[in-house]
Amino acid sequence: MSHIYAVIMAGGVGSRFWPRSRERSPKQLIEIFGSGTMIQNTVNRIQSLVPAMNTFVVTNRLQEEAIYRQLPFLPKENVLVEPVGRNTAPCIGLAALWVRQIDPDGVMLVLPADHLITKPDEFLRIVQLAAKIAQETESLLTIGIKPTHPETGYGYIQFDDEEHAHNTYHRDGVYRVKTFAEKPNIETAQKFLQSGDFLWNSGMFVWKASSILKEIQVHMPDLHEQLVALEPKLRTPEYSSSLEHVYGIIRSISIDYGIMEKAGNVFVVLGDFGWSDVGSWDEVFRLTNPDQDGNAIKGHALLKDAKANYIDAGSKFVGVIGVEDLIIISTDDAVLICKKGRSQDVKEIVDYLRRKQMNEYL
Amino acid sequence: MSHIYAVIMAGGVGSRFWPRSRERSPKQLIEIFGSGTMIQNTVNRIQSLVPAMNTFVVTNRLQEEAIYRQLPFLPKENVLVEPVGRNTAPCIGLAALWVRQIDPDGVMLVLPADHLITKPDEFLRIVQLAAKIAQETESLLTIGIKPTHPETGYGYIQFDDEEHAHNTYHRDGVYRVKTFAEKPNIETAQKFLQSGDFLWNSGMFVWKASSILKEIQVHMPDLHEQLVALEPKLRTPEYSSSLEHVYGIIRSISIDYGIMEKAGNVFVVLGDFGWSDVGSWDEVFRLTNPDQDGNAIKGHALLKDAKANYIDAGSKFVGVIGVEDLIIISTDDAVLICKKGRSQDVKEIVDYLRRKQMNEYL
Repeated sequence: MSHIYAVIMAGGVGSRFWPRSRERSPKQLIEIFGSGTMIQNTVNRIQSLVPAMNTFVVTNRLQEEAIYRQLPFLPKENVLVEPVGRNTAPCIGLAALWVRQIDPDGVMLVLPADHLITKPDEFLRIVQLAAKIAQETESLLTIGIKPTHPETGYGYIQFDDEEHAHNTYHRDGVYRVKTFAEKPNIETAQKFLQSGDFLWNSGMFVWKASSILKEIQVHMPDLHEQLVALEPKLRTPEYSSSLEHVYGIIRSISIDYGIMEKAGNVFVVLGDFGWSDVGSWDEVFRLTNPDQDGNAIKGHALLKDAKANYIDAGSKFVGVIGVEDLIIISTDDAVLICKKGRSQDVKEIVDYLRRKQMNEYL
Repeated sequence: MSHIYAVIMAGGVGSRFWPRSRERSPKQLIEIFGSGTMIQNTVNRIQSLVPAMNTFVVTNRLQEEAIYRQLPFLPKENVLVEPVGRNTAPCIGLAALWVRQIDPDGVMLVLPADHLITKPDEFLRIVQLAAKIAQETESLLTIGIKPTHPETGYGYIQFDDEEHAHNTYHRDGVYRVKTFAEKPNIETAQKFLQSGDFLWNSGMFVWKASSILKEIQVHMPDLHEQLVALEPKLRTPEYSSSLEHVYGIIRSISIDYGIMEKAGNVFVVLGDFGWSDVGSWDEVFRLTNPDQDGNAIKGHALLKDAKANYIDAGSKFVGVIGVEDLIIISTDDAVLICKKGRSQDVKEIVDYLRRKQMNEYL
């Protein structure tokens, strides 16, 4: 039986969590819930299934050092540093090269570094099921989340509920994928929810490295050509310059758009393990247990006549008097005060800082 | 003609401006409006009338060093350091000793260090008028402010509007004082405002050092006895220990209560020079010119859909989204978010920090 390899995608620049997240410390590298950063929790969550030596992290130069620090037990060569971000298809293709070189039958478990999962045991059960199918077949598997509300911030996956002779895992909640749908508007999201055959697209994938490389060859021949040229350079002194060359040529494209929507053998495994991609401060607030006044407080704060506020004081002391429904984030050099429900606008502050080249706050 | 000496009272601990003000840097030592700290502005305002060598500052040990730094042109011996705070009567008595020793006929201009005056020329005219009367008579003069609204945060002075033969300055707006009134409730404040013969008690006084010491002898004989014992020690090696001894004995009492309410020859000079004692962040907000959205911003901030906020960003960058009527104060180690109209509660945060002995934030 082939081994399982984890590929943690940690390239996001995460401007939605400003001022706590910065270019050098985006969401995956900060501690948002309880203890541990998002990427530490992502790696820990699978450690019973995937040992550190089989765990790869794909990231960029800005975050490389922080990842070595946060995951000191990871072999350094398992941190794959992209010269520039080119979306998920090249990222996954590169990781697949490494996995296939180590283990031609190796199964890749592709996980974003910055998701919250509140039921880790159930998550592991689903992942193991998907890995088993990936080992036995050439299928591409994605994990779809049972939607709980008409979320407009996620993509959706429509599945085929009919039983098919060649799908022996139908009763385990594994279905053939009909379509991938982009982030919907609220009316469409409501229809998706009512239909019962739409799941949230979690961005988590399971497949053999050889399977995904075969699909890349079919659907993204340009990328495949570059990857094939790069393959003999792995673990050689020319690797770094070759990688830079390849990333200078290849197109920026997502695995969903480049492969998943086109390939034929795509299955979704239904998951229900308290998942969130934690896309905004509002989402963090929703996922936090508030006190009796509805306040959720991280760090040192004193509140008087204050209700339903989310406060992350950082290393400061925060005094709050007579306010409601605020998101208050304090860091060493910046402070955010945002009305609840408006945290999608945080990225506009980041855009402003970028335009004004106020790089110290980025 | 005798000289004028300024006595700047700078002993306040100013917890109302937390987190900008701290024990070592209370209101008088911080920059709240435009340029210069409150005490620098207080000294500068009178410099055309009182040279630095005639300007005394009475303060405490915590603030001593900051005062040397902020007023480097002041002779060091002009900074009178009280071992403990004993309210204004001992403070003024001590300063009167020093002034009388230098100039037996010297006139003292007693000024709080932390008031705002927006019409400095008119202020100087009033002060000169009061000083002239003090030079010519044994009167105790206080400066009363024409009230503009029924303020409950100030004490009031009721004056006698009738012309008297011995008051040659009646037409200049100098009146005999009838009574001093404590801070009123709102109904009483409205009556005071309507009556036309109540002024705000500014806490500014003008008199000969010899005059106030004579009144202290009559109305506060205990304090006078201690001051007389201290007098021969001025400028001697025993001064410091004698001062400590005296302050260990004397009672804590205000000049209003100890002298002004009891003395007979008390006059008020009517002033109207854009005065405020700047008692709270709300008052600062009222005294600041807002932009077209009603926001007043000090430092670096970016606002989106935000109205009528007062923001003092300190050395941080502050992002504000979708909020109204907030007072936001950011400092190196603490942040305040306070609903407009609630800033009197800031002192409760300071009380909490004191109870918890969180001295780093005090």
